[in-house]
Amino acid sequence: MHLTVINPNTTASMTALIEAEARRVAGPDTVITARTPSMGPASIESHYDEALAVPGLLQVIREDQQADAFVLACFGDPGLDAAREAASRPVIGIAEAAMKTASLLGRSFSVVTTMSRTVGRAWDLTRTYGLERQCVGVHACDIPVLELEADQDRTYAVILAFAKNALAADGSDAIVLGCAGMAGLPELLTEQLGVPVVDGVAAGTLLAESLVRLGLRPSTHGELAPPPPKAYTGVLQGFGR
Amino acid sequence: MHLTVINPNTTASMTALIEAEARRVAGPDTVITARTPSMGPASIESHYDEALAVPGLLQVIREDQQADAFVLACFGDPGLDAAREAASRPVIGIAEAAMKTASLLGRSFSVVTTMSRTVGRAWDLTRTYGLERQCVGVHACDIPVLELEADQDRTYAVILAFAKNALAADGSDAIVLGCAGMAGLPELLTEQLGVPVVDGVAAGTLLAESLVRLGLRPSTHGELAPPPPKAYTGVLQGFGR
Amino acid sequence: MHLTVINPNTTASMTALIEAEARRVAGPDTVITARTPSMGPASIESHYDEALAVPGLLQVIREDQQADAFVLACFGDPGLDAAREAASRPVIGIAEAAMKTASLLGRSFSVVTTMSRTVGRAWDLTRTYGLERQCVGVHACDIPVLELEADQDRTYAVILAFAKNALAADGSDAIVLGCAGMAGLPELLTEQLGVPVVDGVAAGTLLAESLVRLGLRPSTHGELAPPPPKAYTGVLQGFGR
Amino acid sequence: MHLTVINPNTTASMTALIEAEARRVAGPDTVITARTPSMGPASIESHYDEALAVPGLLQVIREDQQADAFVLACFGDPGLDAAREAASRPVIGIAEAAMKTASLLGRSFSVVTTMSRTVGRAWDLTRTYGLERQCVGVHACDIPVLELEADQDRTYAVILAFAKNALAADGSDAIVLGCAGMAGLPELLTEQLGVPVVDGVAAGTLLAESLVRLGLRPSTHGELAPPPPKAYTGVLQGFGR
Amino acid sequence: MHLTVINPNTTASMTALIEAEARRVAGPDTVITARTPSMGPASIESHYDEALAVPGLLQVIREDQQADAFVLACFGDPGLDAAREAASRPVIGIAEAAMKTASLLGRSFSVVTTMSRTVGRAWDLTRTYGLERQCVGVHACDIPVLELEADQDRTYAVILAFAKNALAADGSDAIVLGCAGMAGLPELLTEQLGVPVVDGVAAGTLLAESLVRLGLRPSTHGELAPPPPKAYTGVLQGFGR
Amino acid sequence: MHLTVINPNTTASMTALIEAEARRVAGPDTVITARTPSMGPASIESHYDEALAVPGLLQVIREDQQADAFVLACFGDPGLDAAREAASRPVIGIAEAAMKTASLLGRSFSVVTTMSRTVGRAWDLTRTYGLERQCVGVHACDIPVLELEADQDRTYAVILAFAKNALAADGSDAIVLGCAGMAGLPELLTEQLGVPVVDGVAAGTLLAESLVRLGLRPSTHGELAPPPPKAYTGVLQGFGR
Repeated sequence: MHLTVINPNTTASMTALIEAEARRVAGPDTVITARTPSMGPASIESHYDEALAVPGLLQVIREDQQADAFVLACFGDPGLDAAREAASRPVIGIAEAAMKTASLLGRSFSVVTTMSRTVGRAWDLTRTYGLERQCVGVHACDIPVLELEADQDRTYAVILAFAKNALAADGSDAIVLGCAGMAGLPELLTEQLGVPVVDGVAAGTLLAESLVRLGLRPSTHGELAPPPPKAYTGVLQGFGR
Repeated sequence: MHLTVINPNTTASMTALIEAEARRVAGPDTVITARTPSMGPASIESHYDEALAVPGLLQVIREDQQADAFVLACFGDPGLDAAREAASRPVIGIAEAAMKTASLLGRSFSVVTTMSRTVGRAWDLTRTYGLERQCVGVHACDIPVLELEADQDRTYAVILAFAKNALAADGSDAIVLGCAGMAGLPELLTEQLGVPVVDGVAAGTLLAESLVRLGLRPSTHGELAPPPPKAYTGVLQGFGR
Repeated sequence: MHLTVINPNTTASMTALIEAEARRVAGPDTVITARTPSMGPASIESHYDEALAVPGLLQVIREDQQADAFVLACFGDPGLDAAREAASRPVIGIAEAAMKTASLLGRSFSVVTTMSRTVGRAWDLTRTYGLERQCVGVHACDIPVLELEADQDRTYAVILAFAKNALAADGSDAIVLGCAGMAGLPELLTEQLGVPVVDGVAAGTLLAESLVRLGLRPSTHGELAPPPPKAYTGVLQGFGR
Repeated sequence: MHLTVINPNTTASMTALIEAEARRVAGPDTVITARTPSMGPASIESHYDEALAVPGLLQVIREDQQADAFVLACFGDPGLDAAREAASRPVIGIAEAAMKTASLLGRSFSVVTTMSRTVGRAWDLTRTYGLERQCVGVHACDIPVLELEADQDRTYAVILAFAKNALAADGSDAIVLGCAGMAGLPELLTEQLGVPVVDGVAAGTLLAESLVRLGLRPSTHGELAPPPPKAYTGVLQGFGR
Repeated sequence: MHLTVINPNTTASMTALIEAEARRVAGPDTVITARTPSMGPASIESHYDEALAVPGLLQVIREDQQADAFVLACFGDPGLDAAREAASRPVIGIAEAAMKTASLLGRSFSVVTTMSRTVGRAWDLTRTYGLERQCVGVHACDIPVLELEADQDRTYAVILAFAKNALAADGSDAIVLGCAGMAGLPELLTEQLGVPVVDGVAAGTLLAESLVRLGLRPSTHGELAPPPPKAYTGVLQGFGR
Repeated sequence: MHLTVINPNTTASMTALIEAEARRVAGPDTVITARTPSMGPASIESHYDEALAVPGLLQVIREDQQADAFVLACFGDPGLDAAREAASRPVIGIAEAAMKTASLLGRSFSVVTTMSRTVGRAWDLTRTYGLERQCVGVHACDIPVLELEADQDRTYAVILAFAKNALAADGSDAIVLGCAGMAGLPELLTEQLGVPVVDGVAAGTLLAESLVRLGLRPSTHGELAPPPPKAYTGVLQGFGR
């Protein structure tokens, strides 16, 4: 089975981190490829960045005919519906994956994420996925996305402190990590915190594997059918068909 | 006062139709300019098209420093939050405008829109705007967006028939027109149906005017503050700052 | 265009304040008249007062055939549906106007209102208008309604302090003023707080104007049709027809 | 124990019908008095009628110091919160009573009511009482309120037919009768339909009795405390204190 | 009228407490019998205990053909739907009874319950009964169920302190006692706190009486019909038919 | 990895069917064991059966120390929270598994289940799992559970017909099979219907595998901690500790 994990921002070192985590949990028969788009923002920290990350990830999907399924490794799940239309193969967003996985492990979870200005977006996703009751808190540590990997010891310490505080303040049972750049942390955090800590890159990789093994693809019966072909203009001309 | 009405697709004849309707309802001191993006899809009929329409409309906003406010003339309200971040001036989406205006006129409304595959998206918007109870039906006439203006007599007849049926089937009190390409129809429809018929281009133009007159802009206190500057890559390089 | 702004309580000085604010924002062609009912409570601070304010405001509507639309200037929006039935012309409540306007400006707003015992009523209205998620706090300053105008400097200082606290405690993006007696404050507050501050008298005046310009009236197709005529008894006899 | 059952409209024959039903179910130690207001509409069939019925019923409550509790016998539960403030004793609305009683008997219920234009109001009440999921249909037979008693055989036949249809169309488990004028029907209907049929006059009488026996009154800790005294004007002058 | 009050745990002293409270409020013609199951847990403090309490209470119901109605005296309302199927007579759970009674007395209530690990279950019940908005807080005093009666003075003092704190912290209007072992406390608490305090054993006894007097039983039209007969195996063999 | 799939009813032939399906989809390193409880109902077709199936499945869990995770193969997910408390290892219910998997594949799904009287229970589960909007219909084919395997050709034909009708009537994108006895059907149905068809036994097996691979167990921080030890009485005495 071939899985392609897409880093929707254009920072290659973050793609490498994501790839390593996906490989760590993938089954023995699964070939993981991680890809960086050729256009878009270096990190995703606003609605503006999120919207402008979508063309790049759609291009990756259009050009990758080998993958049996895709994982979108940004916690905002940008362009997820568009990606499913374009792929006609399973596409898993890591926020959806992390939240739905956490919902199997307790009554409630708290999200620890990066920037304060994305907190509202995280709450929107809990509603989209029907988990607004299970999610009982979203906490921003205000470390910019690209600084997460710059000093990993400090990152670990900060996330640990925010997670401890979230469990106490929210009365929650589990932690969801709210950024692809936190991949790699959950094992140690789970051990230290004594509660399940879920990272979406790992969870999404296994959900994507499962859908392929079950032989299930996005429905083409309704709104996720391939988009109707039409002319595109300007620098986006190549997206038409 | 200067208002810019953006047609998020790249079809200039539709821009002209939208401009005419905005001018018809605007106040005497309001200067209306309608703009067509330089990149993106010829019409918006899928999540894929919607996502790929956003870069073009954001570019229009970045380049237009004169406008006091913007109207986004696509019923999916694509990129509305990103547009508010980028503009730092009022931005009104026509779905939000049409639905919130209709909510002042009766207990419930039905939406008559174009393509079946966008019906789910319309329901999503009713939830985003808190009007999922007032909206009691979404009906697709399955006329492609660009055919709406090709044969206006037929378009009027089809919309009239769908609206009549929606009122009866849903027990609704009002009609919301679910496509910018239907601008210009509401007056005659209101008269023939005997219920209020709301078009978002007209409603959005007046809401945008009102916000400017009230001296109100999107809050920069929270998530709608200008996006943090950063590098952008590839054909979207110009969106960085 | 003629707009009648109704002060649902019987205190004439408050009617004058409301009239001044409506005139400040109305368009050049709009004639504003503010009216005080001939029966009912001197101020509205309970469900009891609110219920007993409705006959007076309905009488104003029945006797005013000139107005193209009405604004009900009490933040509880008392009798709004009854008023729409009786008027067959647009009627805008200031709570609905303020909340729906604030919803265009950010993710969330806080309400600053007068008496603690009306806080529950304000939350009810957020649900009626589908904005219970956008409204993230309702704060009562416990200044009785009629004291708001007695010492305007103190009123301004108290409202400013409550608004600052609300923004911090709720993490909100905007402020809604929860009493018609606060009309006149929003401009200065917006400037000092750095977030949008919305007053319903101003917002409602512009929404009423917009509906008249769009040629839209409450639907008579369903429950807002004129009430069936019948006998009325006692001191309310004149309300029959 | 003294219970006062208030018919919020001014039609004395309907008061007699309500009184008979309340007496039928009341306990042996309970003294039932039914009262007709001295002002207001002959029947309640619109928001306008409902609003104008409230002064009359509040006057009954203010003048009745003997009652241990009150039942408001109109399915719209008009003025219920105001009545609780004014009474400082238990006040039960018959819609609340009927719906909460029906919720103890099955998964779902259908409401059979009088006029189509009140259907939306009935749905509003299901939401106020948290029963919008249990209520799966509201059906209007469009018999005007005062005709219900004019031809009781016909009324019974029509209600029976609507109830049968509601059970089949909605897949519901129980019937709630949506008008005080249907008091007296539930026993026979329960027998003929084979499902529980709940009338609010009977259900409300027993809930009021229960609260008195439990020694419970509306909380005066919060918004149901007696309304603050103040001047009232015009024909409503007597409501001030 | 015969009412059977079932203590779903197997501790006889608690059954006696419950019986006394039911007798205190029951009408003069009502014969109260309280029963202890012959199998199951000594107290109910987890999902595990709750699930394993159900066979015992169902056995009590199957063996009691005399009762006109049943009250289930555990605040988790364990097995309520199964009990209604098995009984074909009214069955009232004390959580449902207490919460629905409290909802008649104010805008909001707080629950004071025993163990922290049951708090989530209490919130689940507020949602099942449509009262998740009226319930504004659930507070656990962490006294194990069987210690409630060991030192009644201390129990009273602790509950009083938690209730006072709940009213202040939640801004609530009323208190619901969240354990059958707190029966007997509400009268004194109501007096001392100045707000209504509702115990489900008392409230449930009166609701059960009311349903019997109204001649209403669970609907057998839908899912509460008697369960289809079938073979049962092992120690539960006797539950088959 | 060892997975135990529990058939909560006592019919061994159904256990065999479930085991075969779990083995079909499990990974190469996973050892599947399916177990039948020693007490309880032959099939689960009511709340009564569901409640009485729980002791048997809890006993299986208590006696099985080898399993790394459990799958509960009844679409009602009976006793799921109790099982998680008792197991301290992942426990997946097949309704939760099927619905959450279907939610990754389209906007909406319809459930095709067995008995009409379980339809309400299926809707309850959609709300528990936050998928009440994605689930747009629940359809009962009224084949008793144990007849599903008696005539497999007829079963297939009936399910196919109900699924086709559900897709058309509900406008849904995917089908969820609402009974463990339908395991084995999804592959052929997916092919014939052209939409994803999800069976919970297969989906649950892969979710359980994924949780084990991720090293995640139910949180013991809150309400899913092991139940407090205590005395149990009668035939359930063995459940105490």
